[in-house]
Amino acid sequence: MFFPEEAIAVEEVGDFDMSTIEFERILGGVCAPEGFLASGVSCGIKEQGVLDLALVYSESQATVAGLFTSNEVKAAPVVLSRKIVDTGNARAVVINSGNANAITGARGMEDALSMARKVESCLDLPPGQALVASTGVIGEYLPMERVLRGIEKASKDLSPGGNSDAAKAIMTTDTYPKELAVEMEIGGKVIRLGGMAKGAGMIHPQLATMIVVITTDMPMLPSGMKEWLARAVEWSFNRISVDGDQSTNDTILMLSNGYAFPDGYQMTADEEESLFKALCWLTANLSMALVKDGEGATRLLRIVVNGADSDGDAVKVARNIANSHLVKCAFYGGVPNWGRIAMAAGNAGVRVESERLTILLGEHEVMREGQPVDYEVGRLLGILKRDEVEITVELGVGDGSAYFLTSDISLENVRINAERKT
Amino acid sequence: MFFPEEAIAVEEVGDFDMSTIEFERILGGVCAPEGFLASGVSCGIKEQGVLDLALVYSESQATVAGLFTSNEVKAAPVVLSRKIVDTGNARAVVINSGNANAITGARGMEDALSMARKVESCLDLPPGQALVASTGVIGEYLPMERVLRGIEKASKDLSPGGNSDAAKAIMTTDTYPKELAVEMEIGGKVIRLGGMAKGAGMIHPQLATMIVVITTDMPMLPSGMKEWLARAVEWSFNRISVDGDQSTNDTILMLSNGYAFPDGYQMTADEEESLFKALCWLTANLSMALVKDGEGATRLLRIVVNGADSDGDAVKVARNIANSHLVKCAFYGGVPNWGRIAMAAGNAGVRVESERLTILLGEHEVMREGQPVDYEVGRLLGILKRDEVEITVELGVGDGSAYFLTSDISLENVRINAERKT
Repeated sequence: MFFPEEAIAVEEVGDFDMSTIEFERILGGVCAPEGFLASGVSCGIKEQGVLDLALVYSESQATVAGLFTSNEVKAAPVVLSRKIVDTGNARAVVINSGNANAITGARGMEDALSMARKVESCLDLPPGQALVASTGVIGEYLPMERVLRGIEKASKDLSPGGNSDAAKAIMTTDTYPKELAVEMEIGGKVIRLGGMAKGAGMIHPQLATMIVVITTDMPMLPSGMKEWLARAVEWSFNRISVDGDQSTNDTILMLSNGYAFPDGYQMTADEEESLFKALCWLTANLSMALVKDGEGATRLLRIVVNGADSDGDAVKVARNIANSHLVKCAFYGGVPNWGRIAMAAGNAGVRVESERLTILLGEHEVMREGQPVDYEVGRLLGILKRDEVEITVELGVGDGSAYFLTSDISLENVRINAERKT
Repeated sequence: MFFPEEAIAVEEVGDFDMSTIEFERILGGVCAPEGFLASGVSCGIKEQGVLDLALVYSESQATVAGLFTSNEVKAAPVVLSRKIVDTGNARAVVINSGNANAITGARGMEDALSMARKVESCLDLPPGQALVASTGVIGEYLPMERVLRGIEKASKDLSPGGNSDAAKAIMTTDTYPKELAVEMEIGGKVIRLGGMAKGAGMIHPQLATMIVVITTDMPMLPSGMKEWLARAVEWSFNRISVDGDQSTNDTILMLSNGYAFPDGYQMTADEEESLFKALCWLTANLSMALVKDGEGATRLLRIVVNGADSDGDAVKVARNIANSHLVKCAFYGGVPNWGRIAMAAGNAGVRVESERLTILLGEHEVMREGQPVDYEVGRLLGILKRDEVEITVELGVGDGSAYFLTSDISLENVRINAERKT
């Protein structure tokens, strides 16, 4: 279980110093904000009794923002939910795991629409108020009879304590559910942000096999919320990678029902910054949880690149290191194969000058300005055995910097991906 | 051993129909063309007795062409050999395995130069006639005393039958040496082409951890040879991938000593085409041998993409499928996880329309125009157990097509890359 106390103290997110956060971590996940209910049921897509259908519901009209996969092959629920997000309003999100309803043609679109219509009829909502997301096996039709029965059950089960079941019901190869919530004071009222996420495989920047739902009772306009979400995601879910692949179903949704201020509220600039920082903290921690629970991951790799020609170049170098199969295997083995980091940096398609390149593993320099450093192997091996290893690459050609998170590639990762149909 | 009889009948290379080839496969590798000698010795970079230094020598002046890694971090021998190739002439190539002399700064450059000077002094050549290539561990200095002694020995051992020792001496994680040669008649004379290659890890298009040496006794001008080499490599070494990483040391060299026509010869257009086809056959087969011997590879995947907007787009789609960790793991497992192929196709950054996308595994359609096909699982599993699996992706949006070769990602691949320092 990924609970607030396990959330990592993120020191820096994008442009923000996170040491001065003004919020408290609380329990409750997506149900932490007032007026949100959730449930998670077993409908029979997965084996008997395993939760595989989640429902999140706002008791009143909510504004919505969303970000979706950039894969050209988009699953049916992605196509449907994008249209609803464009209207700016929604009341419910239904998510099934075990089957992605991807590459299922016209029938898949009908099935996604049936899921939405079923939610709307069970919850007495007008059409176009239910968002749909699916995750799991690609290329198989949904067992719709079971799914529709599941939606009926999930509608009845909705409760303010349903967040954990919902977080469990969206899991696929995840080994634990991921949810977080925070609260803070704005304009004399307590407002809350909650979120849940699933990932584990096909995790890659620009969204991936991940489904994320974020809720808040602070009133927000769809346009402002989309802009905030995009920035927060750029600094979190777009900076992680497990296997370098990107799914057909990635979906990040954010709903705001404005319960804290029924008549609206105009935030001060300081309040806006505080709330945005809280959102960034939430997305940064949920994204880190995805990497830590990457398929077969034994180690979190935190890649920091400094001194690039631009921040964009730094991201490219960091991402290329994060996606290097050989680098990831080396960190699984715990062998100080730092030459592979230099190799991956040099392949990023941006300016890298060997003679200025410096690389650190943890706090130890292994390469300084293009030449190997005579390091103490014993101390280095100790660092490489840690659960989290920081790789720092100093390019020395400019002021651009970036960070990126990834996991190692283990034997277990290959076993999972060789044996399982996902 | 990769001998001519094991060479794959390549049906098509680039624009050429290879069913009408006019050459014979022969033995002799890089020594098959007249006037080339070679040797392979153990100098002590690797463990005692293992061949780790190769020398190829032309008995008379040879023209030379070369292609090198596009990695921004280039090993010292790459920097040195590029300069020599630019002069258009060379007499010898020295190659060591076990140590890449990469990321070794100024001392690395001195070492590469010392290797060249030693070859020139042992073979009584003027300065600037010896090319150098290195492959192996990155970030360690060469044991120069041993290397120089090795060059002395290799110079004495040069012989017209030294090709196989040379092919063995350049191996790193390769499990067998790779060499091929062909002969054909041009202008009433027998002319020959020979080649050797090593690869196995960090194999990726745009050159990779591979060292390739091609020799011919047909006279060629450096400029024409470079153009031919570039085209042949585009259709062979640039269409293969093992792990998606690209090394700091990739080097492809071609030497022509003109022994067949000491006074030169003007080929007819037909003769030119025949000779170029022979070169393409040689590079295609050597590149395929690299993939088949990819680290831990259990299966060759031949990816064919048709119906893209352009040939360039088709290459991007094919390459993205070839580099998908999840696709490669699936083929190791032998599970028909074709949804991952669609996912990888959709991520290539080119136009892909789900509803036109058709995918075949071997001769079986698994997805037709965006929808799953109700295939016979038993027959499909049979195809997935083959040593070679053909993946065909029909995009249905244009006339562009391309092929690409890769291997699966096995547990053994991760084991090799986790445990070994390369």
